[in-house]
Amino acid sequence: MTDAARLRGVLSPVVTPFDRDLRPDGKRLAAHCRWLLDNDVGLAIFGTNSEANSMTVPEKLRLLDELVEAGLPAGRMMPGTGCCALTDSVELTRHAVKLGCGGVLMLPPFYYKGVSDEGLYRNFAEIIERVGDDRLRIYLYHIPPVAQVPITLTLIERLLKDYPGIVAGAKDSSGDWSNTKAMLDQFQPEGFDVFPGSETFLLAALRDGGAGCISATANVNPAAIARLAATWEQADADEQQAGLDAVRKIFQTYVMIPALKAAIAHYGDDAEWNRLRPPLVELDDAARKDLVTRLDAAGFAMPGLGSR
Amino acid sequence: MTDAARLRGVLSPVVTPFDRDLRPDGKRLAAHCRWLLDNDVGLAIFGTNSEANSMTVPEKLRLLDELVEAGLPAGRMMPGTGCCALTDSVELTRHAVKLGCGGVLMLPPFYYKGVSDEGLYRNFAEIIERVGDDRLRIYLYHIPPVAQVPITLTLIERLLKDYPGIVAGAKDSSGDWSNTKAMLDQFQPEGFDVFPGSETFLLAALRDGGAGCISATANVNPAAIARLAATWEQADADEQQAGLDAVRKIFQTYVMIPALKAAIAHYGDDAEWNRLRPPLVELDDAARKDLVTRLDAAGFAMPGLGSR
Repeated sequence: MTDAARLRGVLSPVVTPFDRDLRPDGKRLAAHCRWLLDNDVGLAIFGTNSEANSMTVPEKLRLLDELVEAGLPAGRMMPGTGCCALTDSVELTRHAVKLGCGGVLMLPPFYYKGVSDEGLYRNFAEIIERVGDDRLRIYLYHIPPVAQVPITLTLIERLLKDYPGIVAGAKDSSGDWSNTKAMLDQFQPEGFDVFPGSETFLLAALRDGGAGCISATANVNPAAIARLAATWEQADADEQQAGLDAVRKIFQTYVMIPALKAAIAHYGDDAEWNRLRPPLVELDDAARKDLVTRLDAAGFAMPGLGSR
Repeated sequence: MTDAARLRGVLSPVVTPFDRDLRPDGKRLAAHCRWLLDNDVGLAIFGTNSEANSMTVPEKLRLLDELVEAGLPAGRMMPGTGCCALTDSVELTRHAVKLGCGGVLMLPPFYYKGVSDEGLYRNFAEIIERVGDDRLRIYLYHIPPVAQVPITLTLIERLLKDYPGIVAGAKDSSGDWSNTKAMLDQFQPEGFDVFPGSETFLLAALRDGGAGCISATANVNPAAIARLAATWEQADADEQQAGLDAVRKIFQTYVMIPALKAAIAHYGDDAEWNRLRPPLVELDDAARKDLVTRLDAAGFAMPGLGSR
């Protein structure tokens, strides 16, 4: 892969639709992916907001195949492939590389808490060695509020030194700008692409050399977020950022994943999207109505949704 | 299954040996299981101390088959079958029931944090419905320091009401006696068997009607722990408890899982046992020597280890 093919800009941790029997629905997922690409947003499928850890490895392998078979470009995909079990991570990562995915987003193994950087280093190094493919591009996924296992700056430094090129960047979902800033300052100059985990930090990250962002709300507000990523040097950038923040704030009033699905169900006129796998639950009727009322009042829309 | 077949007494979350390529070693595991059974300790394979979440579902299915094929009694087994993905939990649980396991120990889905009791209820209820077998005996696994997702008393009450008999008990690894006591007071009278997650609380639990304990250190000190479970009404019970606590205290000086493996490697004269899967790491040489020195000084031994 040449540098020109590097994943940059805005990516969405694509939400996953489930059918009546709670099976992943590859067709609906492909349609949503197409709509996101139409809006200049890349596909970080199998992320936290994708309920990826509520799916089995075979279910994820099959979904990935279905997306590629549906004609979606693997080069625009950054599937989440980091699991608790080393051998699961290897299998998913290997498949993603084989299909030509632009990169993989890798959680640390997240069951055991208080583990050492040495243990986490061994996990990532062993995956890289076992996959054994120079096309591999790993984006380390730092999301301490959920995983509870951090990717420290010290760990990044060691991995980047031993696997330059392959260790390609990070998604920082700590919500702590000082950490994102430290990643940007220390590692972005070495070609390590830093993506904050929310568009809240998009403008700040781009001004500091960052690569873009990977954000839940890019599922519902892709065009506006992608526009800021493309035009952040223009005079209205701060105004654009304020507009993005206002939309995000509405979604953050609710539990994020069901709120995203509720918006897609409503604006795409497809109630099937409201379903989640346990342990997550859908918004109740009152919350759904409340969400839509607020979004409508803010002039929010999802043009073209449901047409793909 | 009749009540007489209910799992009671002391169980060990059996540590899992890995070979040079970090593959689970079914033969060594079977030998350790035999030694534990010889010492009156049941087999809570695939627990936290088994590094179960560092193994894939196919690896666990195969290991379970290997143990049964090796002649180990499934009725004495309580494999951990609770995964992040509902569909993984169903597959593992179904297989355990098919093989005749005495019960299954079920973690809540542990990736998403701050989930609702409603979502956790749906997870367990859906597993029970999908497995659809009256022989199923579920032991709910409450281990908030690691899973970070609790099994609340309210959740237990609801599950027990809807699935009496099938919801058979709990392992409480909170380390919070007041929680164990509340489980014992509220649910043990209904035939819900409460196992504290450490022998530290064994005597207290038995005096309060509890079923036994499921403890990491039963991997290394099985006979003494099982003896207290069998003779807790005798005059020397408090003295026995103090002896167990002294041994446990030595192991707790180190990271528990590598310390257990180091002891098995040393006293069983089999260095292969020192291996762990990332993200866990083995004790360094100094810690290993220190552990053995302390154990020797305390008169600790593992008679018969390595002979099976």
